Amino acid sequence: MVSNTQLVSTLEADGRLIVELRDEMLPEPAGHQVLVRIEAAPINPSDLGLLFGPADLENAQYSPGKIVATMPEAAVRAMQARLGQAMPVGNEGAGTVVAAGDAPEAQALLGKVVAAIPGAMYAQYRLVDARAAFVLPDGASAEQGAGAFVNPLTALSFVEVLRREGHKALVHTAAASNLGQMLVRICQADGVPLVNIVRSPAQVALLKGIGADYVVDSSSPTYLTDLVAAIDATGATLAFDAIGGGKQAGQILAAMEQVASKNASFSRYGSDTHKQVYIYGALDLGPTVLNRSFGFAWGISGFLLTPFLVKIGAEGAERLRQRVRDELTTTFASHFKARISLAEALTRDVALAYNARATGEKYLIVPHG
Amino acid sequence: MVSNTQLVSTLEADGRLIVELRDEMLPEPAGHQVLVRIEAAPINPSDLGLLFGPADLENAQYSPGKIVATMPEAAVRAMQARLGQAMPVGNEGAGTVVAAGDAPEAQALLGKVVAAIPGAMYAQYRLVDARAAFVLPDGASAEQGAGAFVNPLTALSFVEVLRREGHKALVHTAAASNLGQMLVRICQADGVPLVNIVRSPAQVALLKGIGADYVVDSSSPTYLTDLVAAIDATGATLAFDAIGGGKQAGQILAAMEQVASKNASFSRYGSDTHKQVYIYGALDLGPTVLNRSFGFAWGISGFLLTPFLVKIGAEGAERLRQRVRDELTTTFASHFKARISLAEALTRDVALAYNARATGEKYLIVPHG
Repeated sequence: MVSNTQLVSTLEADGRLIVELRDEMLPEPAGHQVLVRIEAAPINPSDLGLLFGPADLENAQYSPGKIVATMPEAAVRAMQARLGQAMPVGNEGAGTVVAAGDAPEAQALLGKVVAAIPGAMYAQYRLVDARAAFVLPDGASAEQGAGAFVNPLTALSFVEVLRREGHKALVHTAAASNLGQMLVRICQADGVPLVNIVRSPAQVALLKGIGADYVVDSSSPTYLTDLVAAIDATGATLAFDAIGGGKQAGQILAAMEQVASKNASFSRYGSDTHKQVYIYGALDLGPTVLNRSFGFAWGISGFLLTPFLVKIGAEGAERLRQRVRDELTTTFASHFKARISLAEALTRDVALAYNARATGEKYLIVPHG
Repeated sequence: MVSNTQLVSTLEADGRLIVELRDEMLPEPAGHQVLVRIEAAPINPSDLGLLFGPADLENAQYSPGKIVATMPEAAVRAMQARLGQAMPVGNEGAGTVVAAGDAPEAQALLGKVVAAIPGAMYAQYRLVDARAAFVLPDGASAEQGAGAFVNPLTALSFVEVLRREGHKALVHTAAASNLGQMLVRICQADGVPLVNIVRSPAQVALLKGIGADYVVDSSSPTYLTDLVAAIDATGATLAFDAIGGGKQAGQILAAMEQVASKNASFSRYGSDTHKQVYIYGALDLGPTVLNRSFGFAWGISGFLLTPFLVKIGAEGAERLRQRVRDELTTTFASHFKARISLAEALTRDVALAYNARATGEKYLIVPHG
């Protein structure tokens, strides 16, 4: 048995959200299991939904190892299925295999640094199936491997979707993010024209600095005309949107439509060029507002990595994973704003900081730090 | 040469929309052409976009045979491609073939009542390609055939989409419309469960009267729970929405998600049941507002009949057309609120009435009436 501390989030029926550290005993690994001493786990936007959701962190009660916050009523109704359950948090992370079950696949990993995406990674230890673990390349640190799944595979999947659906170029929002920087490097390597939408001149400079060709600043007064010009130059008819709320998805479709109908004769139904936006994040939890000034040849869909990997099949998914392995410390390098312990993750200033989801300000949990 | 009067809509660069009757001379039909004396042409919502769009009809100037209205600036910008062009209006209609070109296909139609969808049908006469004309069944009137294309084929295409995408049941909004009533009859015949969303108790009674099983009234205080119950009973994961603007498309997705996640364990990403809404109309020209309380397995797309018919191929399209022919006066019967002349269509009270797009209040233009 191994003593473990784990971060869990519990939503009570009365609307209280309790996020706390819990001690538990883990059994010894058996069969194909390995015990990973977690050394680094990133806080991705996709973790924050489970951790806090739309709870009010400003006015929460903070005590050592515990946050008690109020969840809006509508959110409580929408999350009936999790009421009263202590949900362990942390999709992915990396660390050292310190014990292993009898199976040869497990024994082979002893002492190795591995990454995994089993959930419940905001903890000191985690039992992981050896067959789903990702052995880091020699010399790579747990920190370098901590985010080896979510962002790299998501960025790679965007280019897969582009090829499968026959688009020529793509648009990405919140493009200065960790994932966005990976996408810039992937598109450069693959020769895919990419329109990056960012939210400040500093982010323009950041992306230009890593070689991005098209960077459009949504805080600029010329944003909409700049966007149309970049879409015109690239021929983009596909977009991936991390923001979700607000008018941006609709503005992108409208800009694509403006380009598509530029040289066409008037049709009351708009152009016949299909324009597609995938919403893969929710940096803005507010409603998506579509002015529908883009005809009828358009689609907006949610996008999730796991079902997409299922859709492209085991071989397709392994091809993407192999590329991550090969380019872990180059294309898929992550930069973290700060390293925090499990206890620090539950203090007011730190929680408010990482929950702000500021572009490019990614936090890393270091459970033994 | 035949003297013809035609209704045209012209948007000027200064924002004036001029809708007027114009006299012209039509040449004699040649080759495969036939000359149709138009006896009935419906005003479909899809005609109103070209005819008036979002122009201000309340404060327009009306004179005999002419309306001059102001178009909002944003709409003028969006419709650059039609500036200064006199656009003939009227997608579809029916009438008697009064002259024909030399080709046997044309000669064979002399004296027959045909329907066609060549555009420019708000006119006394129209030259039509005989090979694209639809000969009405014996005894059917021009009025019965006037709407043989847009509504019947659109309603049939909804059930085609359901089958192609593997859904079990479907939801339809503005379901008391002419098209909605056809869809009720199609779904009854085909055994497809259909959830009809209407906007008044009178419309509930109307649809119940023609045998609809599930009718939900969006004006009822229990609307959202009624909608969830009907979706639960039918298993609908597909919707066709004629309204476009407002919250309804998002509410339908949220109701589908509530049913899909009812018996599933909690996932922060929502259920894995794909939920799809197609927006095929714009009865509400306002923005579409999505609260995204329905996970990530969803899509919303524009839907247009013509590209869909291309997608299903010539054989598929002909199968749908044959069904319309076979059931023209039963499944596909239309009811019109009023018959109006071309001149009446340009008078204030009549124009305001049909432009209100009130569900079930369809107008028929009778050019020789």
